[in-house]
Amino acid sequence: MKHLLSADDLTTDEIIALLGMADHMAEVNARPVPKVPALRGKTVASVFFEDSTRTRLSFETAAKRLSADTMTFSASTSSLNKGESLRDTIETLSAMRVDAFVVRHKSSGVPLQVTEWTDACVINAGDGWHQHPTQALTDAYTMTREFGTPQTLSGKTVAIVGDILHSRVARSNVSVLTKLGAKVVLVAPSTLIPASATEWPVNISHSLDDVIADVDVLYMLRMQQERMETAFVPSLGEYTKRFGLTAHRASRLAEHALVMHPGPMNRGIDMVVDPADVPGSRILKQVTNGIPVRMAVLFTLLGAGNASQLTQGTDL
Amino acid sequence: MKHLLSADDLTTDEIIALLGMADHMAEVNARPVPKVPALRGKTVASVFFEDSTRTRLSFETAAKRLSADTMTFSASTSSLNKGESLRDTIETLSAMRVDAFVVRHKSSGVPLQVTEWTDACVINAGDGWHQHPTQALTDAYTMTREFGTPQTLSGKTVAIVGDILHSRVARSNVSVLTKLGAKVVLVAPSTLIPASATEWPVNISHSLDDVIADVDVLYMLRMQQERMETAFVPSLGEYTKRFGLTAHRASRLAEHALVMHPGPMNRGIDMVVDPADVPGSRILKQVTNGIPVRMAVLFTLLGAGNASQLTQGTDL
Amino acid sequence: MKHLLSADDLTTDEIIALLGMADHMAEVNARPVPKVPALRGKTVASVFFEDSTRTRLSFETAAKRLSADTMTFSASTSSLNKGESLRDTIETLSAMRVDAFVVRHKSSGVPLQVTEWTDACVINAGDGWHQHPTQALTDAYTMTREFGTPQTLSGKTVAIVGDILHSRVARSNVSVLTKLGAKVVLVAPSTLIPASATEWPVNISHSLDDVIADVDVLYMLRMQQERMETAFVPSLGEYTKRFGLTAHRASRLAEHALVMHPGPMNRGIDMVVDPADVPGSRILKQVTNGIPVRMAVLFTLLGAGNASQLTQGTDL
Repeated sequence: MKHLLSADDLTTDEIIALLGMADHMAEVNARPVPKVPALRGKTVASVFFEDSTRTRLSFETAAKRLSADTMTFSASTSSLNKGESLRDTIETLSAMRVDAFVVRHKSSGVPLQVTEWTDACVINAGDGWHQHPTQALTDAYTMTREFGTPQTLSGKTVAIVGDILHSRVARSNVSVLTKLGAKVVLVAPSTLIPASATEWPVNISHSLDDVIADVDVLYMLRMQQERMETAFVPSLGEYTKRFGLTAHRASRLAEHALVMHPGPMNRGIDMVVDPADVPGSRILKQVTNGIPVRMAVLFTLLGAGNASQLTQGTDL
Repeated sequence: MKHLLSADDLTTDEIIALLGMADHMAEVNARPVPKVPALRGKTVASVFFEDSTRTRLSFETAAKRLSADTMTFSASTSSLNKGESLRDTIETLSAMRVDAFVVRHKSSGVPLQVTEWTDACVINAGDGWHQHPTQALTDAYTMTREFGTPQTLSGKTVAIVGDILHSRVARSNVSVLTKLGAKVVLVAPSTLIPASATEWPVNISHSLDDVIADVDVLYMLRMQQERMETAFVPSLGEYTKRFGLTAHRASRLAEHALVMHPGPMNRGIDMVVDPADVPGSRILKQVTNGIPVRMAVLFTLLGAGNASQLTQGTDL
Repeated sequence: MKHLLSADDLTTDEIIALLGMADHMAEVNARPVPKVPALRGKTVASVFFEDSTRTRLSFETAAKRLSADTMTFSASTSSLNKGESLRDTIETLSAMRVDAFVVRHKSSGVPLQVTEWTDACVINAGDGWHQHPTQALTDAYTMTREFGTPQTLSGKTVAIVGDILHSRVARSNVSVLTKLGAKVVLVAPSTLIPASATEWPVNISHSLDDVIADVDVLYMLRMQQERMETAFVPSLGEYTKRFGLTAHRASRLAEHALVMHPGPMNRGIDMVVDPADVPGSRILKQVTNGIPVRMAVLFTLLGAGNASQLTQGTDL
């Protein structure tokens, strides 16, 4: 594995190997000094053309816990303002000896393009509506830690609720979860389901109330204010009434059911109930798990990929 | 001590202990390699909702000299722009395993609120007009280094001059200095003295010329341009005439008197004389001392708090 | 050598010594873990009043590979917005114990001014139209690596093409290259040649086509969009027609000739041909070489300047 561009590129075995490696990394994170020298001397460059403090800090924290150096390039303060092309930016950073690029861009396919301009590994940290593979791995890891092993996801029902159309998180999750044998139901108004979804290995529902009592995992997506302006939903109030997680709906969840959300939540719109009041909520657990999963991805792409290195002690 | 939210929460003994610890840290800072591994593996997150490069760099330098990792979250580039709540931001960062939050916010009380959303230590780096405890500790440390020991502040006269009303620095300094036995005089036009100040253990004067010859420490506050627009003073010129530190006024200071300012100075308004021309100026010393004092605070909150750790050598 | 403010200040011997030190640093950069502890405990502050991600990252990467700590101060998020003077900013950072300032500013002479406000070393990372010495050293290093030794630059012809008038890169390169014995030709419309250039030890040409076949190095400068608005050239199209590097012009270069550019390129204006299609292009090599050259500068100013330290192993 040289790059991580799309969850679609991952085989079931590769997913299971990454989740297993994340277990080793979680053990590192639980140490008093949560650091290993596994990637000393490597440089991980975050190249974010779209702001995402949450995802960037998660990757940079993961890199630092493996003792890699980090370099942050954000579009807002860059020479892109002087008209430098994306390609020249990547080639320039690459010439400084970058070992991995973590790329976020509002256009689908940019991380793939980036692979043509550098010999470094490229990790897609979210591209347009396309893919966000480390989020999907983080979510699968969170579920498997709750249910036992990756194998235990087989046959579980996961409802993904909300704006599927514009969601790279939904696309990546469908890919990873179905490979692990989960049954995925997309729940959204028809205007927010992409036409191609009829060909995905999923079921589609337009009623959260119909499915909520039967899910093992309820995965809520962020509903963006802007969607209403562009007429995808008649009003946010209407959306919330049908697809928001209210206290009443949460009370209909099975006792063992998990509630997840990739964040940031739009409280009062997609999440009406306070997740602190939902026993099954694993929303903060997802954030915590993002670190070992991204450590596993960085280590697999950049390191020997040999977990025995992780027990070499914590000396830097 | 778990948090440092307000100078009001500190007992005299705690203040003296922190100033003593700062002495140890100053010794570390004087080494050729000014670093100790005391906080290796700890993560200190700066969460600044109000820009302050000076204070942020001081805390981050302090953290790095103790070998902690640092994480910077600034409101301007954050998902707060996507409408994420302050609480969700803190909970998200906290879920990545943050050991201490250093929080600055324009609203009083935010650092206290933050303690409800995380198990990490919280340090108030300035909240509204309320408190800025590490600045007050830095100032007290600067005075005690000059006069000898914390005990030597007893009976000394400190005049705090300027916009007391809007100053968290003034509030925190009054608290720390009076606990150490200093006599504090607030010097300002009556419009810039808070009503509650009559209940503080201080004297109040409206004439800098009346008090300047008798102080041991002259502590000048920053006068903000904006205050004039909102009619707190008739004009900045008028303010400067009565409360600015001119060369003439500086010449009336006792020979042993110190001049201090929390920065940034508003030259020509609060500081008319060039501090480089005032022998008693300790304004840059305050900046220097901010590092060991913040190291002392971080080490006390996060470390074993045992100064013997600081002599373990500098190996990382 | 205490500061690096201008290429004009460097003797030929100092230039040769820095290029030799850069060779040692290039060897460090080629190691699996490209790090040495040579500057442990030193703090390098980047103080950029003009954005330049490329130059800033180059310096910060260089500092990190020598194990120095880095501190970034950018004007946009600073208390300069609160009206703090440049001098107070430098004095404040200096009081936190900064060992070297790397300064970029849109006004000529600011780095020199900075030396008056701090005891730290000051490195000019570009000031107005004046100087950018580390770029010129990087360029000379790139040429000498291709041709053999610094001595081999003697008698080589280097054409610097484009907006000489506004270019600190051109000024610094003329200084370094002529000291190494190269013959420099400035190629530009007369409106973009400074009046003083008649006194420089260079030839001047107004026709790229006249000189291109005879150069050993073709050094293209960035042509800024803004220049047209201010009537320095009749139109960008006209400029490109006469001074842009087209595929046709590139085909007239000698086989051994190098093509260089300080970046960022303005594709279609100064660079019309894709540099990837020009065998002699060393544009990305310049970026790569910027790291060892800046390591050499930092190490020479801050370290014992003794290359034997670089073989102490990579332990931090």
